[in-house]
Amino acid sequence: MSATGSTSPLGVICGAGEFPLAVARAARSAGRDVFLLGIEGFVDGELAGWPHARVRLGRIGALLAALRGANVRDLVIVGGLTRPAFRDLRLDFGALRLVPAFLDALRGGDDRLLSRVARFFEREGFRVLGAHEAAPGLLAPAGAIARRAPVAATLRDAEFAARLVAATGPFDAGQAAVVCDGHVWAIEAAEGTDAMLARVAELRASGRIRRRPPSGLLYKAPKPGQDRRVDLPALGPRTVEAARRAGLAAIAWEAGGALVLDREAMARAADAAGISLFGRAA
Amino acid sequence: MSATGSTSPLGVICGAGEFPLAVARAARSAGRDVFLLGIEGFVDGELAGWPHARVRLGRIGALLAALRGANVRDLVIVGGLTRPAFRDLRLDFGALRLVPAFLDALRGGDDRLLSRVARFFEREGFRVLGAHEAAPGLLAPAGAIARRAPVAATLRDAEFAARLVAATGPFDAGQAAVVCDGHVWAIEAAEGTDAMLARVAELRASGRIRRRPPSGLLYKAPKPGQDRRVDLPALGPRTVEAARRAGLAAIAWEAGGALVLDREAMARAADAAGISLFGRAA
Repeated sequence: MSATGSTSPLGVICGAGEFPLAVARAARSAGRDVFLLGIEGFVDGELAGWPHARVRLGRIGALLAALRGANVRDLVIVGGLTRPAFRDLRLDFGALRLVPAFLDALRGGDDRLLSRVARFFEREGFRVLGAHEAAPGLLAPAGAIARRAPVAATLRDAEFAARLVAATGPFDAGQAAVVCDGHVWAIEAAEGTDAMLARVAELRASGRIRRRPPSGLLYKAPKPGQDRRVDLPALGPRTVEAARRAGLAAIAWEAGGALVLDREAMARAADAAGISLFGRAA
Repeated sequence: MSATGSTSPLGVICGAGEFPLAVARAARSAGRDVFLLGIEGFVDGELAGWPHARVRLGRIGALLAALRGANVRDLVIVGGLTRPAFRDLRLDFGALRLVPAFLDALRGGDDRLLSRVARFFEREGFRVLGAHEAAPGLLAPAGAIARRAPVAATLRDAEFAARLVAATGPFDAGQAAVVCDGHVWAIEAAEGTDAMLARVAELRASGRIRRRPPSGLLYKAPKPGQDRRVDLPALGPRTVEAARRAGLAAIAWEAGGALVLDREAMARAADAAGISLFGRAA
């Protein structure tokens, strides 16, 4: 029995990446039954060990039927769902009456998109939880979680980056930036965090960034006013590996405003690379 | 005789790119003598047809002596000078007393850097002009300068991008962004405009951006409060070519807030690619 007080299984709509199964495992560890709904072409993990169904992104009627058939009332939507082109949506018969609302949900920025998808499910009678509500252990904490403590200049950079990310938030742009000693090296938009970090590595290789590694800080935070039930920024061991390749000295996040996948593995990777990891109290 | 009323030659400190010689040609066309000072390792153009000297970036004493020997009083600083690593600076004897002020100028963001370099030359008795003052014909105009007129959605995107670039300006970050229908595709920071446009092309190729080309708008503007004597954002035929490769529909700028190199060639390239080009009145 979970803190949500429901005996029906938690529905996990699974997009791409490692987070959907991490949320499912955390919810099951907390004693809650789980039903996974994998979105074809997006879901990465192995669903076979779980009660689950798979549907295509556009098959909204089938998706609702699968959730209702499993007695799902509480839902969490986790993982990447790159904005589909309308031509890629294969709409089923049951979707027809829902299409206007769903297509409407696909307009706007990523945040608006996901908020609208959440509202769509709410209008269909589900309760949409944030991944951090379904699996509170994934919420990124305050303070340092690896051995290397951030130095004063790193803490100043985290403040600077927090103001920068807050300034781009109203434009529904990225949730991350890379800064160093008050200089902005990269601001994330449609490319995503991994591609942004790869860019920093290239800027170093080409000599455009000449500060010797390790230097620079990756900061991730939700957008101001973001619907935190969907699309909180995510961090994990892969993030540390990408930051290491970019020669960064630190990774920071807004405490309680990001999800951390596999904190222990992340801290081990950071310790091996000499990277400091810390949550900044908002 | 130019509008600046000086009979001493205009000194043009030439960094990388096509702009230094464009400024020199425009000033000479306006009847002013010109003395070029090419920064070794940065200057791209052929200086042989001009009164000129070449110095290394760190040889500040030699640089000042060359300018004074040519009777330069008015200076313009044009073209890219990627922030040097201190270890790359070869300081000459004359530089020793100047080093603290000059190294101080090299801290801070690009804008602060260039402002401080300008103040450094002012303290040495020079008058530092903007490229747009030395060569007003290069200043990017208001309104459309190619055949294809921007549609209403494109004008809305220009307003949206102008607000975005204004929001990142206080962080001394990039002066450009790519947006489409109210979505932010890319925000420029240390990578520069060409690399940002190449990224948009890659995001299209990988399917991360699925809108069919031509779509999307590149916007360039100075930072709010920027010292306009240095580092106004620049546009030229190369920008159009990079935008064409990125599948963009339009390029816009803050009227009077950017420099346009070879407007006729730029308009021809835009017409061939079906790209609209226009200045937005700030």
